Amino acid sequence: MESFFKVKRPDEVFKIIEQFGPSGEETIPLVDSLGRVLRQDLISQEDLPHFARTVVDGYAVRSRDTFGARESLPALLEISGEVLMGQDSGTGVREGQAIKISTGGMLPENADGVVMVEHCHLLDEKTLEISRSISPLENIIQPGDDFKKGAPALKKGHALRPQDVGLLAGLGQAAVSVYTKPKVAIISTGDEILPINQQPQPGQVRDINRYTLGAFCRRVGADPVHMGLCPDDFEALKGRVEKGLDQAETVWISGGSSVGTKDLTLKVFETLQDFELLVHGISISPGKPTIIGKSGSKPVIGLPGHVASALVVADVFMTPLISRLSGRSDSFKEFQTSIAAVLARNIESASGREDYIRVKLVQEGETLTAEPIFGKSGLISTLVEADGLLRIDMNTEGLYKGQMVNVMVPGGIR
Amino acid sequence: MESFFKVKRPDEVFKIIEQFGPSGEETIPLVDSLGRVLRQDLISQEDLPHFARTVVDGYAVRSRDTFGARESLPALLEISGEVLMGQDSGTGVREGQAIKISTGGMLPENADGVVMVEHCHLLDEKTLEISRSISPLENIIQPGDDFKKGAPALKKGHALRPQDVGLLAGLGQAAVSVYTKPKVAIISTGDEILPINQQPQPGQVRDINRYTLGAFCRRVGADPVHMGLCPDDFEALKGRVEKGLDQAETVWISGGSSVGTKDLTLKVFETLQDFELLVHGISISPGKPTIIGKSGSKPVIGLPGHVASALVVADVFMTPLISRLSGRSDSFKEFQTSIAAVLARNIESASGREDYIRVKLVQEGETLTAEPIFGKSGLISTLVEADGLLRIDMNTEGLYKGQMVNVMVPGGIR
Repeated sequence: MESFFKVKRPDEVFKIIEQFGPSGEETIPLVDSLGRVLRQDLISQEDLPHFARTVVDGYAVRSRDTFGARESLPALLEISGEVLMGQDSGTGVREGQAIKISTGGMLPENADGVVMVEHCHLLDEKTLEISRSISPLENIIQPGDDFKKGAPALKKGHALRPQDVGLLAGLGQAAVSVYTKPKVAIISTGDEILPINQQPQPGQVRDINRYTLGAFCRRVGADPVHMGLCPDDFEALKGRVEKGLDQAETVWISGGSSVGTKDLTLKVFETLQDFELLVHGISISPGKPTIIGKSGSKPVIGLPGHVASALVVADVFMTPLISRLSGRSDSFKEFQTSIAAVLARNIESASGREDYIRVKLVQEGETLTAEPIFGKSGLISTLVEADGLLRIDMNTEGLYKGQMVNVMVPGGIR
Repeated sequence: MESFFKVKRPDEVFKIIEQFGPSGEETIPLVDSLGRVLRQDLISQEDLPHFARTVVDGYAVRSRDTFGARESLPALLEISGEVLMGQDSGTGVREGQAIKISTGGMLPENADGVVMVEHCHLLDEKTLEISRSISPLENIIQPGDDFKKGAPALKKGHALRPQDVGLLAGLGQAAVSVYTKPKVAIISTGDEILPINQQPQPGQVRDINRYTLGAFCRRVGADPVHMGLCPDDFEALKGRVEKGLDQAETVWISGGSSVGTKDLTLKVFETLQDFELLVHGISISPGKPTIIGKSGSKPVIGLPGHVASALVVADVFMTPLISRLSGRSDSFKEFQTSIAAVLARNIESASGREDYIRVKLVQEGETLTAEPIFGKSGLISTLVEADGLLRIDMNTEGLYKGQMVNVMVPGGIR
């Protein structure tokens, strides 16, 4: 099977990932909804706001009573009352009258604007001098200005930000219907891998990948499910993958970096129900030996064994995968955030593959410099030193010292 | 007191915020440590890796036995064994010998490099032909290449990313000592504000700010503590603020947008123990009517009442404040992430203040366009439509259509 497969370009892989989607739905309290993804369009069930409000402190008037008013010829109005916060505005404004009102207060009947307190002068308790005219509707918000009843306020597939949570509060939605968070089954393979609380003997290493990938999942809004360590053994790995498919929306194998382990991963995948191999190798560096397949509708992933490569592949490809599994439709936003910086030295790049160079950002006065970090991809220190990734296009042969570059800064889905 | 205060520039406010710091410490499981901030330097207690490993599949050899080898004159070596993953490498390599080894395997004694399997050819079970010479140390990682015993691996004040969590796993740290997450007491004021599960009567509105600011706190790594609704009443508000100071590291008042409420906030603050007023107004739009003070070492904040203004102030100033309260020392990174886009129309700006314009990002083919959203700051819809903020400097009179701009995209602390 392997021989039919050519290494895929990143854009082909992104397209392949688009076939995946969300799997479940649930209703959760609004206070827990940050970052969660709406599973249906949100239609405003009422006008927001539901009454006309002032956005300034001042006096509610009939605007025509102020027409022509100026410093040298102020309008004189009778103060006929005050609107109290949170209360109906009562009797209304008649010709020649003004009603005191504070920001957010409800506009009295017949009033069509508010004169800011800065343009008012009290002659006595009952008499107001106005030194500026206002236009109709000046300084007020009308019913439905934010959202009209029946209007779509938020779209299905949108991940909730603080302002969206606020909007839902404004519409009185104490609970919200969202897609379930995807669960990711993480399997660490390799006879040499040891639980982190044990002291490694010569030849053994602690399970770094499980923790790195688990934290990655949390950062992008998924829940990691740790399936434990698995030896380099066909039956053991097959059992673990099948258990993972039962418990999670996707299974990721990582840890073993030898050719033997990689062959094992593919052999196990090929025995899964309704298995289809989608990607066998990606033309990027680091991260080429990545396997993406599916069992039924669930993606199964073989990540590179070196942790630094695995995390680059996760940042670049697993972020949009999790985005799809979360039900997000506005997915272009999560992997384009970047910081502009000046490149500190020349970087060569082989054409025909996309390079992801780890860089450190160094602030010197006003200038932010991007310093490439070179090192074997088996070293986690290269990632620990790095602040972000610099993508070098397949058709670019390199970048030059002094050039402005955009450094991808992996972060939470926003 | 107020009259002594001039409206402060944003750079002055950032400087003022730097005085705040973290308050507590705790030890937490490594799996929960993403985003948490180290409270002491992490010193590597052992070499990582602790033995020499190969980064390729191939044969471990004494490099001098390959010197001069090439296609036309290959070196011939005797295969004397195999290194099993996770096991000690056994007897070692003697002159003229090679030992089979997989990526991650432990380098046998006397070997000083590994020939990649691609450059090897098996003549028979025991005889290996090598078509390329290797240099000493080629294709291996030596003990301590990642981190040497006693070397500083991560700095105090660093917020843990997935790779840092992985490093801690590699060093066997199943628990990690971090600063406590800051708690933010949020008080919604205003006689017109109603719990969100109630039906507002004319003049009443639901408590949008509490939910918006609560979600903001979670996004930047703080825990909101909701102190409930508070009427526009001096004694009630004072009691609520004091309770907030007992329960949290900072108290934020928000909701009331009238001048009366704002005066009340400052009056209440001035009665607090060891109160000092630090900022009374910031030269930005929106968000000018912001109050920052401290009671003892705890910041107390009066946010603008309009939710859109409150969230802009939160994004710009409360993000670094939370960063300080979290104990982060690498704070320049969290508010510089941006997306480059082409401005869709001219924007004028008053000099002498910094403007934060809400913009929508629209992808059209290859071009990302930033479209300014104009609207009254009392409207939450302006924020719901927006993807980010465009900062216009105090000394800039405007920006031009077609100009490249960097749109700040508020997101989680990374």
